[in-house]
Amino acid sequence: MGFQAHPTALVESESIGEGTRIWAFTHVMPGAVIGRNCNIADHCHIEGGSVVGDNVTVKNLNMVTEGVTLEDGVFVGPHVVFTNDRYARSPRGGHAGSRYADKASWLLPTVIRRGATLGGGSVILPGLVVGEYAMVAAGCVVTRDVPPHCLLKGNPGRPGGWVCFCGLPLVAAGGEARCANCGHQFEVTQSGVTPLGGPT
Amino acid sequence: MGFQAHPTALVESESIGEGTRIWAFTHVMPGAVIGRNCNIADHCHIEGGSVVGDNVTVKNLNMVTEGVTLEDGVFVGPHVVFTNDRYARSPRGGHAGSRYADKASWLLPTVIRRGATLGGGSVILPGLVVGEYAMVAAGCVVTRDVPPHCLLKGNPGRPGGWVCFCGLPLVAAGGEARCANCGHQFEVTQSGVTPLGGPT
Amino acid sequence: MGFQAHPTALVESESIGEGTRIWAFTHVMPGAVIGRNCNIADHCHIEGGSVVGDNVTVKNLNMVTEGVTLEDGVFVGPHVVFTNDRYARSPRGGHAGSRYADKASWLLPTVIRRGATLGGGSVILPGLVVGEYAMVAAGCVVTRDVPPHCLLKGNPGRPGGWVCFCGLPLVAAGGEARCANCGHQFEVTQSGVTPLGGPT
Repeated sequence: MGFQAHPTALVESESIGEGTRIWAFTHVMPGAVIGRNCNIADHCHIEGGSVVGDNVTVKNLNMVTEGVTLEDGVFVGPHVVFTNDRYARSPRGGHAGSRYADKASWLLPTVIRRGATLGGGSVILPGLVVGEYAMVAAGCVVTRDVPPHCLLKGNPGRPGGWVCFCGLPLVAAGGEARCANCGHQFEVTQSGVTPLGGPT
Repeated sequence: MGFQAHPTALVESESIGEGTRIWAFTHVMPGAVIGRNCNIADHCHIEGGSVVGDNVTVKNLNMVTEGVTLEDGVFVGPHVVFTNDRYARSPRGGHAGSRYADKASWLLPTVIRRGATLGGGSVILPGLVVGEYAMVAAGCVVTRDVPPHCLLKGNPGRPGGWVCFCGLPLVAAGGEARCANCGHQFEVTQSGVTPLGGPT
Repeated sequence: MGFQAHPTALVESESIGEGTRIWAFTHVMPGAVIGRNCNIADHCHIEGGSVVGDNVTVKNLNMVTEGVTLEDGVFVGPHVVFTNDRYARSPRGGHAGSRYADKASWLLPTVIRRGATLGGGSVILPGLVVGEYAMVAAGCVVTRDVPPHCLLKGNPGRPGGWVCFCGLPLVAAGGEARCANCGHQFEVTQSGVTPLGGPT
Protein backbone atom coordinates (compact mmCIF):
# COMPACT_ATOMS: atom_id res chain seq x y z
CA MET A 1 0.00 0.00 0.00
CA GLY A 2 2.51 2.59 1.10
CA PHE A 3 1.70 6.23 1.58
CA GLN A 4 -0.38 8.69 -0.47
CA ALA A 5 0.86 12.04 -1.74
CA HIS A 6 -1.02 14.84 -3.48
CA PRO A 7 0.21 15.40 -7.06
CA THR A 8 1.67 18.78 -6.11
CA ALA A 9 3.57 17.41 -3.08
CA LEU A 10 7.32 16.92 -3.33
CA VAL A 11 8.36 13.78 -1.50
CA GLU A 12 12.12 13.17 -1.49
CA SER A 13 12.32 10.86 1.53
CA GLU A 14 12.11 7.10 1.26
CA SER A 15 11.19 6.67 4.92
CA ILE A 16 7.45 7.28 4.96
CA GLY A 17 5.15 4.79 6.66
CA GLU A 18 2.13 2.97 5.37
CA GLY A 19 -1.18 4.81 5.34
CA THR A 20 0.40 8.25 5.72
CA ARG A 21 -1.02 11.07 3.62
CA ILE A 22 0.95 14.06 2.36
CA TRP A 23 -1.11 16.99 1.09
CA ALA A 24 -0.77 19.75 -1.47
CA PHE A 25 2.34 21.90 -1.89
CA THR A 26 4.09 20.04 0.91
CA HIS A 27 7.78 19.26 0.66
CA VAL A 28 9.33 16.29 2.46
CA MET A 29 13.11 16.48 2.25
CA PRO A 30 15.63 13.67 1.87
CA GLY A 31 16.47 12.27 5.28
CA ALA A 32 13.16 13.08 6.93
CA VAL A 33 11.55 10.10 8.66
CA ILE A 34 7.75 9.87 8.90
CA GLY A 35 5.86 6.98 10.48
CA ARG A 36 2.62 5.24 9.66
CA ASN A 37 -0.90 6.61 9.48
CA CYS A 38 0.12 10.27 9.71
CA ASN A 39 -1.55 13.27 8.12
CA ILE A 40 0.76 16.02 6.86
CA ALA A 41 -1.39 18.89 5.60
CA ASP A 42 -0.80 21.51 2.88
CA HIS A 43 2.16 23.91 2.66
CA CYS A 44 4.42 22.04 5.07
CA HIS A 45 8.15 21.48 4.94
CA ILE A 46 9.55 18.42 6.68
CA GLU A 47 13.28 18.89 6.87
CA GLY A 48 15.95 16.19 6.74
CA GLY A 49 16.98 15.21 10.25
CA SER A 50 13.48 15.49 11.67
CA VAL A 51 11.60 12.41 12.92
CA VAL A 52 7.81 12.03 12.92
CA GLY A 53 6.26 9.00 14.68
CA ASP A 54 3.06 7.11 13.92
CA ASN A 55 -0.47 8.58 14.03
CA VAL A 56 0.82 12.15 14.03
CA THR A 57 -1.28 15.04 12.70
CA VAL A 58 0.61 18.02 11.27
CA LYS A 59 -1.76 20.78 10.20
CA ASN A 60 -1.11 23.37 7.51
CA LEU A 61 1.79 25.76 7.13
CA ASN A 62 4.30 24.02 9.33
CA MET A 63 8.04 23.71 9.04
CA VAL A 64 9.31 20.70 10.98
CA THR A 65 12.95 21.62 11.40
CA GLU A 66 16.05 19.45 11.56
CA GLY A 67 16.45 18.17 15.12
CA VAL A 68 12.71 17.99 15.88
CA THR A 69 11.17 14.70 17.02
CA LEU A 70 7.39 14.33 17.10
CA GLU A 71 6.55 11.11 18.94
CA ASP A 72 3.50 8.93 18.24
CA GLY A 73 0.10 10.57 18.32
CA VAL A 74 1.30 14.19 18.48
CA PHE A 75 -0.96 16.97 17.17
CA VAL A 76 0.67 20.03 15.60
CA GLY A 77 -1.80 22.85 14.87
CA PRO A 78 -1.34 25.28 11.97
CA HIS A 79 1.57 27.78 11.94
CA VAL A 80 3.58 26.20 14.76
CA VAL A 81 7.12 27.58 14.95
CA PHE A 82 9.95 25.15 15.61
CA THR A 83 13.50 26.41 16.15
CA ASN A 84 16.86 24.67 16.50
CA ASP A 85 19.45 27.39 17.16
CA ARG A 86 19.46 29.58 20.24
CA TYR A 87 21.76 32.23 18.73
CA ALA A 88 20.83 32.14 15.07
CA ARG A 89 22.67 34.36 12.62
CA SER A 90 22.86 34.18 8.86
CA PRO A 91 25.66 31.68 8.19
CA ARG A 92 26.45 33.76 5.12
CA GLY A 93 27.54 36.80 7.11
CA GLY A 94 31.13 37.15 8.19
CA HIS A 95 30.68 37.04 11.96
CA ALA A 96 29.00 33.73 12.70
CA GLY A 97 30.04 31.62 9.76
CA SER A 98 32.57 29.54 11.71
CA ARG A 99 29.88 28.54 14.25
CA TYR A 100 28.01 26.83 11.41
CA ALA A 101 30.93 24.69 10.28
CA ASP A 102 29.95 21.98 12.79
CA LYS A 103 26.34 21.13 13.68
CA ALA A 104 27.33 20.18 17.21
CA SER A 105 28.05 23.84 17.91
CA TRP A 106 24.59 25.18 17.12
CA LEU A 107 21.92 22.48 16.55
CA LEU A 108 19.66 21.89 19.57
CA PRO A 109 17.08 19.09 19.56
CA THR A 110 13.36 19.44 20.31
CA VAL A 111 11.30 16.51 21.53
CA ILE A 112 7.51 16.51 21.56
CA ARG A 113 6.49 13.47 23.58
CA ARG A 114 3.74 10.97 22.82
CA GLY A 115 0.21 12.33 22.49
CA ALA A 116 1.07 15.99 23.14
CA THR A 117 -0.65 18.93 21.41
CA LEU A 118 1.04 22.05 20.04
CA GLY A 119 -1.69 24.65 19.53
CA GLY A 120 -1.87 26.79 16.40
CA GLY A 121 0.74 29.53 16.24
CA SER A 122 2.65 28.29 19.26
CA VAL A 123 6.43 28.84 19.28
CA ILE A 124 8.84 26.23 20.65
CA LEU A 125 12.27 27.50 21.63
CA PRO A 126 15.18 25.17 20.88
CA GLY A 127 16.49 22.43 23.13
CA LEU A 128 13.22 21.74 24.96
CA VAL A 129 11.05 18.72 25.76
CA VAL A 130 7.26 18.93 25.73
CA GLY A 131 5.99 16.12 27.97
CA GLU A 132 3.54 13.32 27.16
CA TYR A 133 -0.01 14.50 26.56
CA ALA A 134 0.89 18.09 27.41
CA MET A 135 -1.19 20.81 25.77
CA VAL A 136 0.47 23.99 24.53
CA ALA A 137 -2.22 26.61 23.97
CA ALA A 138 -2.58 28.48 20.70
CA GLY A 139 -0.15 31.39 20.51
CA CYS A 140 1.92 30.22 23.50
CA VAL A 141 5.70 30.75 23.47
CA VAL A 142 7.39 27.76 25.13
CA THR A 143 10.64 28.77 26.86
CA ARG A 144 11.10 25.83 29.29
CA ASP A 145 10.45 22.10 29.35
CA VAL A 146 6.74 21.31 29.73
CA PRO A 147 5.70 18.59 32.24
CA PRO A 148 3.48 15.73 31.07
CA HIS A 149 -0.27 16.53 30.93
CA CYS A 150 0.44 20.23 31.59
CA LEU A 151 -1.60 23.00 29.95
CA LEU A 152 0.75 25.84 29.04
CA LYS A 153 -0.34 29.31 27.83
CA GLY A 154 0.93 32.86 27.35
CA ASN A 155 4.22 34.48 26.34
CA PRO A 156 6.36 33.28 28.01
CA GLY A 157 4.32 30.12 28.53
CA ARG A 158 3.11 29.42 32.08
CA PRO A 159 1.25 26.40 33.48
CA GLY A 160 -2.50 26.88 33.55
CA GLY A 161 -3.82 23.48 34.71
CA TRP A 162 -3.67 19.82 33.72
CA VAL A 163 -5.26 17.87 30.90
CA CYS A 164 -6.23 14.26 30.35
CA PHE A 165 -5.00 11.89 27.65
CA CYS A 166 -8.09 12.93 25.71
CA GLY A 167 -7.21 16.65 25.94
CA LEU A 168 -9.95 17.79 28.31
CA PRO A 169 -9.12 19.59 31.57
CA LEU A 170 -8.67 17.62 34.78
CA VAL A 171 -10.64 18.56 37.87
CA ALA A 172 -8.43 18.34 40.97
CA ALA A 173 -9.67 17.58 44.48
CA GLY A 174 -7.40 16.68 47.37
CA GLY A 175 -4.36 14.88 46.04
CA GLU A 176 -6.17 13.52 43.00
CA ALA A 177 -7.48 14.76 39.70
CA ARG A 178 -10.07 13.27 37.40
CA CYS A 179 -11.22 13.72 33.81
CA ALA A 180 -14.97 14.38 33.69
CA ASN A 181 -14.98 13.19 30.10
CA CYS A 182 -13.34 9.78 30.19
CA GLY A 183 -12.89 9.06 33.90
CA HIS A 184 -9.11 8.72 34.00
CA GLN A 185 -7.69 9.44 37.44
CA PHE A 186 -4.35 11.01 38.31
CA GLU A 187 -2.26 11.54 41.40
CA VAL A 188 -1.34 15.20 41.91
CA THR A 189 2.05 16.02 43.42
CA GLN A 190 4.21 19.11 43.54
CA SER A 191 6.03 18.04 40.44
CA GLY A 192 2.94 17.31 38.34
CA VAL A 193 0.30 14.68 37.72
CA THR A 194 0.76 10.93 37.30
CA PRO A 195 -1.89 8.62 35.86
CA LEU A 196 -3.36 6.10 38.31
CA GLY A 197 -4.42 2.60 37.41
CA GLY A 198 -3.51 0.42 34.50
CA PRO A 199 -1.57 1.11 31.35
CA THR A 200 -2.90 3.65 28.92
CA MET B 1 -16.70 36.94 -16.05
CA GLY B 2 -16.31 34.80 -12.98
CA PHE B 3 -13.19 34.72 -10.82
CA GLN B 4 -9.48 34.66 -11.69
CA ALA B 5 -7.02 32.08 -10.42
CA HIS B 6 -3.25 31.92 -10.79
CA PRO B 7 -2.12 28.91 -12.86
CA THR B 8 -0.55 27.32 -9.79
CA ALA B 9 -3.66 27.73 -7.62
CA LEU B 10 -5.83 24.70 -6.89
CA VAL B 11 -9.49 25.68 -6.92
CA GLU B 12 -11.84 22.82 -6.07
CA SER B 13 -14.84 24.87 -4.95
CA GLU B 14 -17.60 25.93 -7.33
CA SER B 15 -18.81 28.70 -5.02
CA ILE B 16 -16.48 31.57 -5.83
CA GLY B 17 -17.92 34.99 -6.62
CA GLU B 18 -17.36 37.25 -9.58
CA GLY B 19 -14.25 39.39 -9.61
CA THR B 20 -12.48 37.40 -6.91
CA ARG B 21 -8.77 36.68 -7.41
CA ILE B 22 -6.95 33.61 -6.09
CA TRP B 23 -3.17 33.82 -6.09
CA ALA B 24 -0.23 31.45 -6.43
CA PHE B 25 0.05 28.13 -4.58
CA THR B 26 -3.32 28.68 -2.91
CA HIS B 27 -5.68 25.79 -2.39
CA VAL B 28 -9.44 26.29 -2.16
CA MET B 29 -11.10 23.07 -1.03
CA PRO B 30 -14.42 21.61 -2.11
CA GLY B 31 -17.20 23.10 0.00
CA ALA B 32 -15.48 26.42 0.70
CA VAL B 33 -17.66 29.44 -0.13
CA ILE B 34 -16.01 32.68 -1.26
CA GLY B 35 -17.94 35.83 -2.25
CA ARG B 36 -17.36 38.49 -4.86
CA ASN B 37 -14.45 40.87 -5.33
CA CYS B 38 -12.18 39.16 -2.81
CA ASN B 39 -8.44 38.86 -2.89
CA ILE B 40 -6.96 35.60 -1.60
CA ALA B 41 -3.17 35.88 -1.66
CA ASP B 42 -0.41 33.28 -2.11
CA HIS B 43 0.07 30.11 -0.03
CA CYS B 44 -3.41 30.06 1.51
CA HIS B 45 -5.66 27.12 2.26
CA ILE B 46 -9.41 27.75 2.34
CA GLU B 47 -10.97 24.71 3.91
CA GLY B 48 -14.37 23.24 3.15
CA GLY B 49 -16.94 24.51 5.64
CA SER B 50 -15.49 28.00 5.79
CA VAL B 51 -17.42 31.00 4.46
CA VAL B 52 -15.82 34.16 3.06
CA GLY B 53 -18.08 37.15 2.25
CA ASP B 54 -17.67 39.86 -0.40
CA ASN B 55 -14.78 42.36 -0.61
CA VAL B 56 -12.64 40.36 1.79
CA THR B 57 -8.84 40.57 1.71
CA VAL B 58 -6.92 37.48 2.85
CA LYS B 59 -3.18 38.08 2.82
CA ASN B 60 -0.49 35.44 2.39
CA LEU B 61 0.09 32.25 4.33
CA ASN B 62 -3.36 31.85 5.85
CA MET B 63 -5.36 28.75 6.63
CA VAL B 64 -9.06 29.58 6.84
CA THR B 65 -10.31 26.61 8.82
CA GLU B 66 -13.63 24.79 8.71
CA GLY B 67 -16.14 26.68 10.87
CA VAL B 68 -14.68 30.15 10.18
CA THR B 69 -16.90 32.88 8.74
CA LEU B 70 -15.33 36.07 7.42
CA GLU B 71 -18.11 38.59 6.79
CA ASP B 72 -18.05 41.27 4.08
CA GLY B 73 -15.07 43.61 3.98
CA VAL B 74 -12.90 41.75 6.49
CA PHE B 75 -9.11 42.13 6.31
CA VAL B 76 -6.94 39.16 7.31
CA GLY B 77 -3.23 39.99 7.55
CA PRO B 78 -0.49 37.46 6.81
CA HIS B 79 0.02 34.40 9.09
CA VAL B 80 -3.26 34.70 11.00
CA VAL B 81 -4.00 31.56 13.04
CA PHE B 82 -7.57 30.28 13.09
CA THR B 83 -8.55 27.36 15.31
CA ASN B 84 -11.72 25.31 15.68
CA ASP B 85 -11.11 22.82 18.51
CA ARG B 86 -10.52 23.84 22.11
CA TYR B 87 -9.03 20.47 23.14
CA ALA B 88 -7.31 19.32 19.97
CA ARG B 89 -5.59 15.95 19.88
CA SER B 90 -4.46 13.87 16.95
CA PRO B 91 -7.58 11.93 15.93
CA ARG B 92 -5.22 9.12 14.96
CA GLY B 93 -4.09 8.47 18.52
CA GLY B 94 -6.00 6.03 20.67
CA HIS B 95 -7.23 8.39 23.37
CA ALA B 96 -9.26 11.04 21.60
CA GLY B 97 -10.39 9.24 18.48
CA SER B 98 -14.00 8.81 19.62
CA ARG B 99 -14.36 12.55 20.18
CA TYR B 100 -13.75 13.05 16.45
CA ALA B 101 -16.48 10.68 15.31
CA ASP B 102 -19.02 13.52 15.42
CA LYS B 103 -18.19 17.14 14.49
CA ALA B 104 -20.72 18.43 17.02
CA SER B 105 -18.46 17.23 19.81
CA TRP B 106 -15.40 19.26 18.85
CA LEU B 107 -16.00 21.84 16.08
CA LEU B 108 -16.42 25.42 17.37
CA PRO B 109 -17.31 28.25 14.99
CA THR B 110 -15.46 31.55 14.60
CA VAL B 111 -17.18 34.65 13.26
CA ILE B 112 -15.29 37.73 12.10
CA ARG B 113 -17.91 40.44 11.64
CA ARG B 114 -18.22 42.95 8.81
CA GLY B 115 -15.27 45.22 8.21
CA ALA B 116 -13.06 43.88 11.01
CA THR B 117 -9.26 43.57 10.77
CA LEU B 118 -7.16 40.65 11.98
CA GLY B 119 -3.57 41.86 12.18
CA GLY B 120 -0.65 39.80 10.89
CA GLY B 121 0.25 36.86 13.11
CA SER B 122 -2.78 37.24 15.35
CA VAL B 123 -4.23 34.05 16.86
CA ILE B 124 -7.98 33.54 17.21
CA LEU B 125 -9.07 30.93 19.76
CA PRO B 126 -12.07 28.83 18.79
CA GLY B 127 -15.71 29.70 19.42
CA LEU B 128 -15.28 33.48 19.41
CA VAL B 129 -16.85 36.46 17.68
CA VAL B 130 -14.78 39.46 16.57
CA GLY B 131 -17.19 42.40 16.34
CA GLU B 132 -17.86 44.72 13.40
CA TYR B 133 -14.93 46.96 12.48
CA ALA B 134 -12.87 45.71 15.42
CA MET B 135 -9.10 45.78 15.00
CA VAL B 136 -6.98 42.93 16.32
CA ALA B 137 -3.37 44.10 16.51
CA ALA B 138 -0.53 42.18 14.91
CA GLY B 139 0.61 39.32 17.14
CA CYS B 140 -2.43 39.54 19.46
CA VAL B 141 -3.89 36.32 20.91
CA VAL B 142 -7.68 36.64 21.06
CA THR B 143 -9.15 34.66 23.97
CA ARG B 144 -12.58 36.37 24.35
CA ASP B 145 -15.20 37.92 22.13
CA VAL B 146 -14.11 41.33 20.81
CA PRO B 147 -16.64 44.22 20.91
CA PRO B 148 -17.36 46.19 17.73
CA HIS B 149 -14.80 48.91 16.88
CA CYS B 150 -12.49 47.68 19.67
CA LEU B 151 -8.69 47.72 19.30
CA LEU B 152 -7.29 44.57 20.93
CA LYS B 153 -3.60 43.89 21.58
CA GLY B 154 -1.26 41.63 23.57
CA ASN B 155 -1.25 38.01 24.73
CA PRO B 156 -3.88 37.48 26.01
CA GLY B 157 -5.53 40.26 24.03
CA ARG B 158 -6.76 43.29 25.99
CA PRO B 159 -8.73 46.34 24.82
CA GLY B 160 -6.50 49.28 23.95
CA GLY B 161 -8.92 51.86 22.54
CA TRP B 162 -11.51 52.22 19.79
CA VAL B 163 -11.22 52.55 16.05
CA CYS B 164 -13.38 54.04 13.31
CA PHE B 165 -14.90 52.28 10.29
CA CYS B 166 -11.81 53.46 8.42
CA GLY B 167 -9.43 51.84 10.93
CA LEU B 168 -8.01 55.00 12.52
CA PRO B 169 -8.18 55.55 16.29
CA LEU B 170 -11.12 57.41 17.82
CA VAL B 171 -10.50 60.37 20.09
CA ALA B 172 -12.86 60.25 23.05
CA ALA B 173 -14.13 63.33 24.93
CA GLY B 174 -17.03 63.25 27.37
CA GLY B 175 -19.48 60.56 26.30
CA GLU B 176 -18.56 60.82 22.65
CA ALA B 177 -15.72 59.80 20.38
CA ARG B 178 -14.77 61.08 16.97
CA CYS B 179 -12.54 60.04 14.11
CA ALA B 180 -10.09 62.79 13.19
CA ASN B 181 -9.72 61.25 9.75
CA CYS B 182 -13.26 60.90 8.44
CA GLY B 183 -15.39 62.68 11.04
CA HIS B 184 -17.61 59.79 12.12
CA GLN B 185 -19.00 60.25 15.62
CA PHE B 186 -19.75 57.57 18.20
CA GLU B 187 -21.51 57.37 21.54
CA VAL B 188 -19.26 55.91 24.25
CA THR B 189 -20.87 53.75 26.94
CA GLN B 190 -19.56 51.22 29.44
CA SER B 191 -20.20 48.41 27.02
CA GLY B 192 -18.46 49.99 24.03
CA VAL B 193 -18.99 52.52 21.26
CA THR B 194 -22.01 52.97 18.99
CA PRO B 195 -21.95 54.96 15.77
CA LEU B 196 -24.10 58.11 15.79
CA GLY B 197 -25.97 59.46 12.81
CA GLY B 198 -27.08 57.84 9.63
CA PRO B 199 -26.38 54.47 8.15
CA THR B 200 -22.82 53.58 7.31
CA MET C 1 26.54 32.03 -13.11
CA GLY C 2 23.53 33.88 -11.82
CA PHE C 3 21.13 32.53 -9.23
CA GLN C 4 19.54 29.10 -8.77
CA ALA C 5 15.82 28.48 -8.44
CA HIS C 6 13.94 25.28 -7.62
CA PRO C 7 11.78 24.10 -10.53
CA THR C 8 8.60 24.88 -8.56
CA ALA C 9 9.71 28.41 -7.64
CA LEU C 10 8.15 31.36 -9.45
CA VAL C 11 10.74 34.04 -10.07
CA GLU C 12 9.37 37.16 -11.73
CA SER C 13 12.06 39.61 -10.69
CA GLU C 14 15.14 40.32 -12.79
CA SER C 15 17.08 41.74 -9.86
CA ILE C 16 18.48 38.67 -8.16
CA GLY C 17 22.16 38.47 -7.33
CA GLU C 18 24.74 35.87 -8.17
CA GLY C 19 24.89 32.75 -6.03
CA THR C 20 21.46 33.28 -4.50
CA ARG C 21 19.23 30.23 -4.13
CA ILE C 22 15.42 30.28 -4.24
CA TRP C 23 13.69 27.15 -2.93
CA ALA C 24 10.48 25.25 -3.60
CA PHE C 25 7.06 26.89 -3.93
CA THR C 26 8.58 30.33 -3.38
CA HIS C 27 7.30 33.32 -5.32
CA VAL C 28 9.47 36.32 -6.05
CA MET C 29 7.37 39.13 -7.49
CA PRO C 30 8.27 41.66 -10.16
CA GLY C 31 10.05 44.60 -8.58
CA ALA C 32 11.55 42.67 -5.67
CA VAL C 33 15.31 43.18 -5.32
CA ILE C 34 17.46 40.39 -3.87
CA GLY C 35 21.23 40.56 -3.49
CA ARG C 36 24.02 38.01 -3.84
CA ASN C 37 24.62 34.79 -1.98
CA CYS C 38 21.21 34.73 -0.27
CA ASN C 39 19.13 31.73 0.68
CA ILE C 40 15.36 32.10 0.32
CA ALA C 41 13.70 28.92 1.63
CA ASP C 42 10.44 27.17 0.70
CA HIS C 43 6.95 28.73 0.70
CA CYS C 44 8.11 32.35 0.77
CA HIS C 45 6.64 35.37 -1.00
CA ILE C 46 8.98 38.26 -1.76
CA GLU C 47 6.79 41.17 -2.73
CA GLY C 48 7.59 43.91 -5.19
CA GLY C 49 8.98 46.94 -3.39
CA SER C 50 10.95 44.91 -0.88
CA VAL C 51 14.76 44.96 -0.85
CA VAL C 52 16.97 42.08 0.33
CA GLY C 53 20.73 42.68 0.65
CA ASP C 54 23.62 40.24 0.25
CA ASN C 55 24.23 37.12 2.38
CA VAL C 56 20.70 37.18 3.79
CA THR C 57 19.00 34.00 5.04
CA VAL C 58 15.20 33.89 4.81
CA LYS C 59 13.82 30.68 6.30
CA ASN C 60 10.55 29.00 5.34
CA LEU C 61 7.06 30.42 5.25
CA ASN C 62 7.91 34.11 5.11
CA MET C 63 6.19 36.96 3.37
CA VAL C 64 8.60 39.84 2.83
CA THR C 65 6.16 42.69 2.31
CA GLU C 66 6.43 45.80 0.18
CA GLY C 67 8.38 48.44 2.10
CA VAL C 68 10.63 45.97 3.95
CA THR C 69 14.41 46.28 3.67
CA LEU C 70 16.63 43.47 4.91
CA GLU C 71 20.22 44.68 4.95
CA ASP C 72 23.29 42.50 4.36
CA GLY C 73 23.68 39.39 6.52
CA VAL C 74 20.21 39.48 8.10
CA PHE C 75 18.69 36.21 9.38
CA VAL C 76 14.90 35.79 9.17
CA GLY C 77 13.61 32.69 10.98
CA PRO C 78 10.52 30.77 9.86
CA HIS C 79 7.04 32.37 10.08
CA VAL C 80 8.21 35.95 10.69
CA VAL C 81 5.38 38.46 10.28
CA PHE C 82 6.13 41.71 8.48
CA THR C 83 3.51 44.46 8.27
CA ASN C 84 3.35 47.76 6.41
CA ASP C 85 0.08 49.44 7.41
CA ARG C 86 -0.73 50.58 10.93
CA TYR C 87 -4.48 50.82 10.32
CA ALA C 88 -5.10 48.09 7.78
CA ARG C 89 -8.59 47.56 6.39
CA SER C 90 -9.72 45.69 3.32
CA PRO C 91 -9.29 48.19 0.48
CA ARG C 92 -12.33 46.54 -1.09
CA GLY C 93 -14.71 47.68 1.65
CA GLY C 94 -16.44 51.03 1.36
CA HIS C 95 -14.94 52.78 4.36
CA ALA C 96 -11.21 52.74 3.83
CA GLY C 97 -10.93 52.52 0.08
CA SER C 98 -9.89 56.14 -0.41
CA ARG C 99 -6.97 55.71 1.98
CA TYR C 100 -5.54 53.14 -0.42
CA ALA C 101 -5.62 55.40 -3.48
CA ASP C 102 -2.16 56.71 -2.61
CA LYS C 103 0.60 54.59 -1.06
CA ALA C 104 1.98 57.59 0.81
CA SER C 105 -1.11 57.57 3.00
CA TRP C 106 -0.71 54.04 4.35
CA LEU C 107 2.63 52.38 3.46
CA LEU C 108 5.17 52.44 6.31
CA PRO C 109 8.72 51.15 5.77
CA THR C 110 10.52 48.55 7.89
CA VAL C 111 14.31 48.40 8.03
CA ILE C 112 16.21 45.43 9.45
CA ARG C 113 19.82 46.57 9.78
CA ARG C 114 22.98 44.68 8.88
CA GLY C 115 23.51 41.34 10.61
CA ALA C 116 20.34 41.39 12.72
CA THR C 117 18.28 38.28 13.56
CA LEU C 118 14.49 38.01 13.53
CA GLY C 119 13.58 34.88 15.48
CA GLY C 120 10.97 32.42 14.25
CA GLY C 121 7.39 33.63 14.62
CA SER C 122 8.40 37.16 15.59
CA VAL C 123 6.07 39.98 14.53
CA ILE C 124 7.40 43.33 13.35
CA LEU C 125 4.98 46.25 13.53
CA PRO C 126 5.18 48.75 10.67
CA GLY C 127 7.44 51.77 10.48
CA LEU C 128 10.20 50.40 12.72
CA VAL C 129 13.96 49.95 12.55
CA VAL C 130 15.68 46.88 14.01
CA GLY C 131 19.28 47.91 14.72
CA GLU C 132 22.52 46.30 13.53
CA TYR C 133 23.16 42.84 14.97
CA ALA C 134 20.07 43.05 17.18
CA MET C 135 18.40 39.77 18.09
CA VAL C 136 14.62 39.53 18.19
CA ALA C 137 13.66 36.39 20.13
CA ALA C 138 11.31 33.78 18.72
CA GLY C 139 7.68 34.80 19.21
CA CYS C 140 8.54 38.41 20.15
CA VAL C 141 6.21 41.22 19.02
CA VAL C 142 8.30 44.27 18.12
CA THR C 143 6.41 47.52 18.81
CA ARG C 144 9.32 50.02 18.97
CA ASP C 145 12.67 50.55 17.30
CA VAL C 146 15.28 48.07 18.53
CA PRO C 147 18.77 49.38 19.42
CA PRO C 148 21.84 47.77 17.82
CA HIS C 149 23.02 44.52 19.48
CA CYS C 150 19.88 44.45 21.67
CA LEU C 151 18.15 41.17 22.59
CA LEU C 152 14.38 41.75 22.54
CA LYS C 153 11.76 39.28 23.82
CA GLY C 154 8.11 39.07 24.87
CA ASN C 155 4.84 40.63 23.73
CA PRO C 156 5.27 43.56 23.62
CA GLY C 157 8.99 43.12 23.10
CA ARG C 158 11.28 44.33 25.90
CA PRO C 159 15.08 44.46 26.08
CA GLY C 160 16.61 41.42 27.76
CA GLY C 161 20.35 41.94 27.33
CA TRP C 162 22.92 42.50 24.60
CA VAL C 163 24.40 40.21 21.99
CA CYS C 164 27.62 40.11 20.04
CA PHE C 165 28.11 40.22 16.27
CA CYS C 166 28.18 36.43 16.44
CA GLY C 167 24.81 36.25 18.24
CA LEU C 168 26.00 35.11 21.65
CA PRO C 169 25.15 37.07 24.81
CA LEU C 170 27.52 39.74 26.10
CA VAL C 171 28.72 39.65 29.69
CA ALA C 172 28.74 43.16 31.16
CA ALA C 173 31.11 44.32 33.90
CA GLY C 174 31.63 47.97 34.82
CA GLY C 175 31.11 50.10 31.77
CA GLU C 176 32.16 47.37 29.37
CA ALA C 177 30.79 44.17 27.95
CA ARG C 178 32.55 41.26 26.32
CA CYS C 179 31.65 38.24 24.25
CA ALA C 180 32.96 35.04 25.83
CA ASN C 181 32.79 33.37 22.44
CA CYS C 182 34.74 35.63 20.14
CA GLY C 183 36.26 38.23 22.46
CA HIS C 184 34.70 41.37 20.98
CA GLN C 185 34.49 44.19 23.49
CA PHE C 186 31.81 46.88 23.76
CA GLU C 187 31.30 50.11 25.65
CA VAL C 188 28.06 50.11 27.64
CA THR C 189 26.18 53.40 27.97
CA GLN C 190 22.65 54.35 28.92
CA SER C 191 21.61 54.31 25.29
CA GLY C 192 23.07 50.91 24.44
CA VAL C 193 26.34 49.22 23.54
CA THR C 194 29.01 50.35 21.09
CA PRO C 195 31.76 48.09 19.74
CA LEU C 196 35.28 48.98 20.83
CA GLY C 197 38.35 48.56 18.70
CA GLY C 198 38.77 48.28 14.99
CA PRO C 199 36.30 47.83 12.21
CA THR C 200 34.14 44.73 12.20
